[in-house]
Amino acid sequence: MQDLFQLICAQEMLAHCATFAPLAEERVPLGAARGRVLSKDVHSPAALPPFARSIMDGFAVRASDIAGCSDSEPTLLQLCGEIMMGESGSSRSLATGQCLRIWTGGKLPQDADAVVMLEDTKFHSPDTLAVFRPVTPGSNIIHAGEDYSQDSLVLSKGHQLRPQDLGLLAGLGIREVAVHQRPKVAILSTGDELVPVEQTPSGGQVRDINSTILAALVEEVGGMAQFLGICKDNLIALQHRCCQALDRTDMILLSGGSSMGRRDFTHRVFSSLPDSELLVHGVSARPGKPAILAKRGNQALLGLPGHAASAMVVFYLVARPLLRRLLGLTAGHGLTPLEVVTARQISSPIGREDYVRVRLLPAKHGGPPLAEPIYAKPGLLNSLVRANGLLPIARDSQGLEAGESAWVLLFPHIPHIS
Amino acid sequence: MQDLFQLICAQEMLAHCATFAPLAEERVPLGAARGRVLSKDVHSPAALPPFARSIMDGFAVRASDIAGCSDSEPTLLQLCGEIMMGESGSSRSLATGQCLRIWTGGKLPQDADAVVMLEDTKFHSPDTLAVFRPVTPGSNIIHAGEDYSQDSLVLSKGHQLRPQDLGLLAGLGIREVAVHQRPKVAILSTGDELVPVEQTPSGGQVRDINSTILAALVEEVGGMAQFLGICKDNLIALQHRCCQALDRTDMILLSGGSSMGRRDFTHRVFSSLPDSELLVHGVSARPGKPAILAKRGNQALLGLPGHAASAMVVFYLVARPLLRRLLGLTAGHGLTPLEVVTARQISSPIGREDYVRVRLLPAKHGGPPLAEPIYAKPGLLNSLVRANGLLPIARDSQGLEAGESAWVLLFPHIPHIS
Repeated sequence: MQDLFQLICAQEMLAHCATFAPLAEERVPLGAARGRVLSKDVHSPAALPPFARSIMDGFAVRASDIAGCSDSEPTLLQLCGEIMMGESGSSRSLATGQCLRIWTGGKLPQDADAVVMLEDTKFHSPDTLAVFRPVTPGSNIIHAGEDYSQDSLVLSKGHQLRPQDLGLLAGLGIREVAVHQRPKVAILSTGDELVPVEQTPSGGQVRDINSTILAALVEEVGGMAQFLGICKDNLIALQHRCCQALDRTDMILLSGGSSMGRRDFTHRVFSSLPDSELLVHGVSARPGKPAILAKRGNQALLGLPGHAASAMVVFYLVARPLLRRLLGLTAGHGLTPLEVVTARQISSPIGREDYVRVRLLPAKHGGPPLAEPIYAKPGLLNSLVRANGLLPIARDSQGLEAGESAWVLLFPHIPHIS
Repeated sequence: MQDLFQLICAQEMLAHCATFAPLAEERVPLGAARGRVLSKDVHSPAALPPFARSIMDGFAVRASDIAGCSDSEPTLLQLCGEIMMGESGSSRSLATGQCLRIWTGGKLPQDADAVVMLEDTKFHSPDTLAVFRPVTPGSNIIHAGEDYSQDSLVLSKGHQLRPQDLGLLAGLGIREVAVHQRPKVAILSTGDELVPVEQTPSGGQVRDINSTILAALVEEVGGMAQFLGICKDNLIALQHRCCQALDRTDMILLSGGSSMGRRDFTHRVFSSLPDSELLVHGVSARPGKPAILAKRGNQALLGLPGHAASAMVVFYLVARPLLRRLLGLTAGHGLTPLEVVTARQISSPIGREDYVRVRLLPAKHGGPPLAEPIYAKPGLLNSLVRANGLLPIARDSQGLEAGESAWVLLFPHIPHIS
């Protein structure tokens, strides 16, 4: 049979992903910004902290007053009261020989330049403090602006916001941030044999599995999935559905068509859409060969294999990098690599990248975990359900021997809950 | 000064976390089940696939008909038509010497036991097929129930649902699953110096940072955060707020009280709540020493340090394991460990676990990444913002030399978006 594909490797696929632009900007409140990606640099509107603060429970002093004190010759200071938490220290000042009680986080009074720890003091009388250890100016305090000075760059464009980043923004009084929009992804399953999950299949029918998997994969990476339903293998109907979806989506994920005739079908649908440009028709990867990528403006049209396991691998290799790119991240898969040792020999043909599903087993003698390849016929779900990740084998490799060191791309194991 | 704490190590803390029970069960639809944890084993209500399917585009045959065929002596079969996708094969049967066109995923007709690949055939006439290669019975098909047989265990209690697991459930027609409820977490910040994010601080005031960080950390692991607001350092008011929260929460996260007096304050509030039992008062970890854990029935009351960086470390060491336990997972932090090489010497006092914030730098010569410790005064946020994870140093270690191998617990870098 003739090979219809002009195969490219996964690395070239990433280059195609990078031709898409991050989505437009929107402003979101901090409470909805976790995982979102900054569309602009953020500069500090004010100094943080806004004033010099104590980082200890102790006494605010002038360091010069206690220079040279020691256990045998303590300096005696006059205790003039206490800086209450939240109190403005600007109304309080220290004269030479005075000190003020201060708490962790308290604002330093004027003319104080250091804090003496409780542990280095003793009350000589209720209003006289003996200090046994000198401090240098600046000791046990944070200066105004020491964390972030005014107008400094605090977070850069392209940064994905983590809890601590949101905390920083809150501390600066920034209540909403400019981020790239979340990609809207239309999911369409094709196949005359498919019935919805809620329907009992009869005859040669099976339930549609891919739409459930793909929607969860889309949400896992931060996109918003919309399921458009099951479409029969009818060119006109499929074109019509895709055209409708184009009005309100950033990406179409069309799965199905594992058979030769139907693969071509997806190609014809994408090619027929107005202003579409075919970028990729086939990837030299297993599984994943029948992937089709087209572009229409900044919209991505992606055809995935019908087999769930193949569709999932292609999602990780193509759709996930694309979605990350639209979100404002770099166009990689973003999966965590883990070093492993192969549990048995894994052979692979030269000329094609292999993405072998593997299960991780506990390490022997405390080394890296063992990766056991899961071989299964195409179309079986249990190989995916038993797997912890994918072990890539390079195009020019014939595979790995048992006991060799390798890297596994872990399936994201900390899923989002939306 | 007297040390008020009976310090325990982080490992003992985990043992306390394990005394909490996973939350009650609820049933959720598949579309809302990603990241949720099964509260019951799931068995297959039917065989998957429900019938024998082809995994190739080809021809359904009786293997015995083509035994012994070869390039030079092909077997000729009568082509009797095509199995349409979704068509019930039960109305079709194969007599000896016959074959039927079949597509990937198609249902095998009665009496067929294998599929011949297109590549191994050639049309002799429009209704006569020449087959050049024999197949064994079962070739290129999936048997009914080969993926999952009826009544088999498909997913176990305690399993956190990933996209492929949801796909499997969809394939079996299971539309909702029994999972543990998501923990409801009440977040309360204490401190007379705190003002809400939207308010401009004056005098010695600062904005409340912890509630924003903690809410995001709670959602990251799958909990539902509810911010109860800022509370002044007033025992009665704080007791009142906590009592109110107990009606509708699984966990209270009370942050603040980094100063000696206020630490004791959290202790007094927790102790005063009806039926509460103090489990932990201090952890021998840096940062994290002032952590307080109390239990009331299956509700967790957790006191965190006021400094954001310390609060975040204690969250990862205590709150996160607890939340994972309530969700139905094992009570570990669940952070991914990454092997690194230290970029410089890191010293640590004996007798205390250290959790050093580190930044990861690209590997030298392709080895593991370098971990550079970030030293900062307590209270500075930039140490957290610059960090990629925590490098734990054991209680009995004096630290690490530059260039030593070590493990870093990565901050979750694939955040959920809710």
